[in-house]
Amino acid sequence: MDEKTAMSKGLELVERSKIALLGTNGPGGYPHIKALLNLKHLGLKEFWFSTNTTSRRVKQVVNDGKTCLYFVDPDSFEGLMLLGHAEITQEPEIRGALWFEGSEKYYPRGVEDPDYSVIHFTSFRGNYYHGLCNIYFDTK
Amino acid sequence: MDEKTAMSKGLELVERSKIALLGTNGPGGYPHIKALLNLKHLGLKEFWFSTNTTSRRVKQVVNDGKTCLYFVDPDSFEGLMLLGHAEITQEPEIRGALWFEGSEKYYPRGVEDPDYSVIHFTSFRGNYYHGLCNIYFDTK
Repeated sequence: MDEKTAMSKGLELVERSKIALLGTNGPGGYPHIKALLNLKHLGLKEFWFSTNTTSRRVKQVVNDGKTCLYFVDPDSFEGLMLLGHAEITQEPEIRGALWFEGSEKYYPRGVEDPDYSVIHFTSFRGNYYHGLCNIYFDTK
Repeated sequence: MDEKTAMSKGLELVERSKIALLGTNGPGGYPHIKALLNLKHLGLKEFWFSTNTTSRRVKQVVNDGKTCLYFVDPDSFEGLMLLGHAEITQEPEIRGALWFEGSEKYYPRGVEDPDYSVIHFTSFRGNYYHGLCNIYFDTK
């Protein structure tokens, strides 16, 4: 499998995934993982997730932007890991774009709820595998 | 929800999960994530996974045992994170216990294949969430 195919297969996996797994650096030198709803992305380069401003995730990302994203299909045993940087934003436009029916369950005060934040992740490197195939590439 | 219920719900999630997500500390300060087949565990305290001795995962665990495990049900949006320590073993008994039909695809030389290793993970702390419920506990 060449890099181009791996990136295209990785993108297909992202597009059919309901969730993304975010890896962060937690306290005491332990990595943490959290599932987030896969709401919006631009190819394999940029991803946006909604989260509670007061969550541990936000604190960890503010403290250290070095993060990874992971997508997996447990049936085909196909996976994609993206390494990159995350930052927190409360920009009204992106908060509005990620809002969906049901968001009020998490952010009762609506789209302007101060507890509603967005994690913006930008990748630089990727790794796609399927079976015994394991391909590394720079994301564009 | 109390701690006891959270641990029991977390255990049910582990028992119906085909895969576990392992979080490790990768090079350059980036967390890494990899899906592993959920083969054997003892409650929420100990877990064993088969892996290739030459894999990046093994290198990272040898370098830093601080790791986490994550289980998620994307439909119920229920998740369990366990913080703990991982170590690599090639003890014959555990290699035999984890061997299954199909393992030869990954370890062509059989149960004694030098490229066949076991990741042994021991947790000390857990976090179970379901919807807006988020419970922390020490694992026993």
